[in-house]
Amino acid sequence: MDTASGVSDREPRQERSRATRARLLDAAVGCLSERGAAGTTVGAVAERAGVSRGAAQHHFPTREDLLLAALRHIVDSRGTDLRRRVESVPGGPGRTEAVVQMVVDAFSGTGFNAALQLWAGAASDPALRERVIPLEEQVGREVHRAVVDLLGADESVPGTREAVQATLDLARGLGLANLLTDDGARRRHIVRQWARMLDQALAAGD
Amino acid sequence: MDTASGVSDREPRQERSRATRARLLDAAVGCLSERGAAGTTVGAVAERAGVSRGAAQHHFPTREDLLLAALRHIVDSRGTDLRRRVESVPGGPGRTEAVVQMVVDAFSGTGFNAALQLWAGAASDPALRERVIPLEEQVGREVHRAVVDLLGADESVPGTREAVQATLDLARGLGLANLLTDDGARRRHIVRQWARMLDQALAAGD
Repeated sequence: MDTASGVSDREPRQERSRATRARLLDAAVGCLSERGAAGTTVGAVAERAGVSRGAAQHHFPTREDLLLAALRHIVDSRGTDLRRRVESVPGGPGRTEAVVQMVVDAFSGTGFNAALQLWAGAASDPALRERVIPLEEQVGREVHRAVVDLLGADESVPGTREAVQATLDLARGLGLANLLTDDGARRRHIVRQWARMLDQALAAGD
Repeated sequence: MDTASGVSDREPRQERSRATRARLLDAAVGCLSERGAAGTTVGAVAERAGVSRGAAQHHFPTREDLLLAALRHIVDSRGTDLRRRVESVPGGPGRTEAVVQMVVDAFSGTGFNAALQLWAGAASDPALRERVIPLEEQVGREVHRAVVDLLGADESVPGTREAVQATLDLARGLGLANLLTDDGARRRHIVRQWARMLDQALAAGD
């Protein structure tokens, strides 16, 4: 009888709950990426995760809750990945290209494709859009700040802020092109050229 | 009785048919932009255009035919608009910025948003994707060629081709950011800075 409310039972239950939630979020990201926002319902995600619909609704009462949590999950994963990669960015002349490559990579893959599907869906869904925008703005500021720090760029110099922002916009555009066709060679050449142009622009400001 | 097959009647009929087709295509673009690819069915577009479902299906037997024709319609309108604007691009020091602005404008508005929804839809629809990719590649080549000509850029110089391609990717990225939030001031600053960097890159190649 002590298992009903005992700590020894609550712990595994919390762990199971966390694991279920994580499975649902991974399934939501996969579902968004493969089937788009319209195909990402609580039912479809529950089925994909191998979780009952009731259990899914316990974690995410509405479809909107699930979509927002999925976007936050993508953002958190991307943040973790960026922080890990920051440590391996080399110093010296190759640094700018490594930083640009890091940003371009952050706007690609399943997570980015899922986010893109969510943005496309939010464009025609005012309630979802209202909740997506602040999260995207926060992410934009965080990545911008990280790139400024990594490049040792001085934003008080005219043009620097815009050059860094353009790096993020370029990466987003490459990610969008990448949605339908994956042309890694083209991307690498553009990253290299952009890094050269960025180096020139930042040096011109010194 | 002569009206059944007479030339005098066939002409207006062809005109009516063209007008119906044009109304359907405009409705499809509006529908894509507002409701996304999943919400863009032949029935929904026919209703929006004020055309019977049968008449719509006469022009576009399948949803895929309609979506592809809508994308081609967007591309053609963009081409017409670009050709018109090319004539008013100034010479002299402001030319690069005017060209970059022209490209950025080409990746915005209802037509771009509709195309973006179609790309998002095509990502999870292999048959649609196969037909969208060649059209997008053709457009990419045409816009690239126009920008090279307008800038008087020499693509045999290393880096020039990539700098022009990056301009298109940047414009696509700005258009994607623009899908949820319209920040015209930010876009203008980035266009100005990008034009400066592009001028430097092209001059460095001389």
